Amino acid sequence: MTKKVGKQTFKPSSPPVIISTAAVSGPFEGQGPLGKYMDHVYTDVTAGERSFEGAEKEMMTNACFTCLNKAGKSPPEVDIFLSGDLLNQTITSGFSALELAIPYLGIYGACSTSAEGLALAAMLVDGGFAGLVLAAASSHNSTAERQYRYPTEYGVQRKPTAQWTVTGSGAALVAPAGQGPVITYVTVGKVTDLGIKDPLNLGAAMAPAAALTMIQHFADTGHGPEYYDLIVTGDLGKFGHEMAVKLAVSRGGFDLGKNYRDCGLMIYDTEKQDVHSGGSGCAASAIVTYGYIYKKLLKKEFNKVLLVATGALHSPTSSQQGGNIPGIAHAVSIEMT
Amino acid sequence: MTKKVGKQTFKPSSPPVIISTAAVSGPFEGQGPLGKYMDHVYTDVTAGERSFEGAEKEMMTNACFTCLNKAGKSPPEVDIFLSGDLLNQTITSGFSALELAIPYLGIYGACSTSAEGLALAAMLVDGGFAGLVLAAASSHNSTAERQYRYPTEYGVQRKPTAQWTVTGSGAALVAPAGQGPVITYVTVGKVTDLGIKDPLNLGAAMAPAAALTMIQHFADTGHGPEYYDLIVTGDLGKFGHEMAVKLAVSRGGFDLGKNYRDCGLMIYDTEKQDVHSGGSGCAASAIVTYGYIYKKLLKKEFNKVLLVATGALHSPTSSQQGGNIPGIAHAVSIEMT
Repeated sequence: MTKKVGKQTFKPSSPPVIISTAAVSGPFEGQGPLGKYMDHVYTDVTAGERSFEGAEKEMMTNACFTCLNKAGKSPPEVDIFLSGDLLNQTITSGFSALELAIPYLGIYGACSTSAEGLALAAMLVDGGFAGLVLAAASSHNSTAERQYRYPTEYGVQRKPTAQWTVTGSGAALVAPAGQGPVITYVTVGKVTDLGIKDPLNLGAAMAPAAALTMIQHFADTGHGPEYYDLIVTGDLGKFGHEMAVKLAVSRGGFDLGKNYRDCGLMIYDTEKQDVHSGGSGCAASAIVTYGYIYKKLLKKEFNKVLLVATGALHSPTSSQQGGNIPGIAHAVSIEMT
Repeated sequence: MTKKVGKQTFKPSSPPVIISTAAVSGPFEGQGPLGKYMDHVYTDVTAGERSFEGAEKEMMTNACFTCLNKAGKSPPEVDIFLSGDLLNQTITSGFSALELAIPYLGIYGACSTSAEGLALAAMLVDGGFAGLVLAAASSHNSTAERQYRYPTEYGVQRKPTAQWTVTGSGAALVAPAGQGPVITYVTVGKVTDLGIKDPLNLGAAMAPAAALTMIQHFADTGHGPEYYDLIVTGDLGKFGHEMAVKLAVSRGGFDLGKNYRDCGLMIYDTEKQDVHSGGSGCAASAIVTYGYIYKKLLKKEFNKVLLVATGALHSPTSSQQGGNIPGIAHAVSIEMT
């Protein structure tokens, strides 16, 4: 009777459609190879606001309004707004929800937020509860770095495993019917703990969660890695990407193959842009999926994509108390039919 | 075609059943008038853990396992765990999800989390996605006060409008069928901003959201305040409760009547226990609803209850930057049939 498939996967009875998306980014991301896929690239990380937090909120509201405009919709037509970000009390989302004035359900999945929002949007639409759900996620380098690690002015030397928090925001509009790629499966992840304690190596904290969610998705659906034109993890970076490839083999016997990429490695030119292990943050998977991938799906350059957004449940408080940094990953199967 | 009723309310086609709940609290809450309804009262706020954060996590996992045990269920039988708390990065929920090992979707609604979790649980169950959803929420005085306001050792003088963060956790298990009260409607709130800037007066920040969500619920469902045996807001406290009563009249023309109470005022003996304006925190509505109200519903001493959990989207960062503190409230209609 339930739409559950296997152990952790859910299959909508009538695949919800992503009728519109939008992605905006900071200037540094705009200089990367996917810059041309952004709907707007800010010329300044402040986005004209008085605080970096204000800038992040400006980016999210811009992504949301752009997404709605593209579909010819206005906020009062949207039933539910699902959103999350990295800031304490997810203030980017809260203040954006205030401006949008759409009934709001806040989510927290660290950098897995894009997939969590998309998964819940699909379930609420397919469950018959909503005709339109707007899902958004954001991060900002200048808000996240100082909250999670060191004041940016301090100029701490970064380790090779460190990643660069992506500045930007992405939004998607999900409906029961319409033009666009559809959501065929969602796999809800479990929190996974490999014992990582280093907040400058979050790729390692998230890689096991990514691998286990992918393995479970393959097992639950019977669709192996070869089924997809593209499998993207959210923000594992170089080291995490390598780990995920190895773990998929060692834990599940799956060769992720050459179609497996990581959003954190796609955003920047990792040869020329000094981001160490790659990009990270909720915006990594959000702007790659809602900017680049969505447009490629519309053109049928991709037909079957598995988004596996990855989150490190890193807290400065628990980390400073000696706690581990667990990870989580949710997968959403997006297909152009 | 959708299950939307009016502007912000959703009606499950087959009302999901709350088949089990559990509530645990700290010692101070145990001394209050509802202490006897708790499944467990800790004798110490550390709950035997090395940190207050560890204590809060112990309380949430205890509430979750107790809730499952009462229903004769184990974590592998649960499809989705929905949880949130007040701590940055919602670590109580994240670490509890790790221990429970149930596929996890993190939520953030500040103190409105209990109703947000229950609303989403009802929608996921009624949408056919889950046979069992576990929803939890928690707060802890010693973790929240120092994060949001001042170090507790500092002993800052509290204003009359200040509230006391409730220590405890509550959990509910929602299923498509079974014994227990059912969820007949959920009303998803909008973020509301009255311009409050004082983190020691969160009742005022939340009261407009509570009033507007109640007014919308009454308008959407056609069920006025008189329909319910009990209407409870989450944690408005004395001042917020008074404001909500006035706003319901001035904004919507509704007399909330004598059946309207506030969980933050029910937990403590406000004459004898020095909590100023009353209790607050995610646990306020969670332990009152999942401890006291649920048991009264089972005995049919209440038959129709409207839970209106209220959240202040208070962030020390945005507050110190001069931002307002917006509020949100979600309503869940729980009926014993």
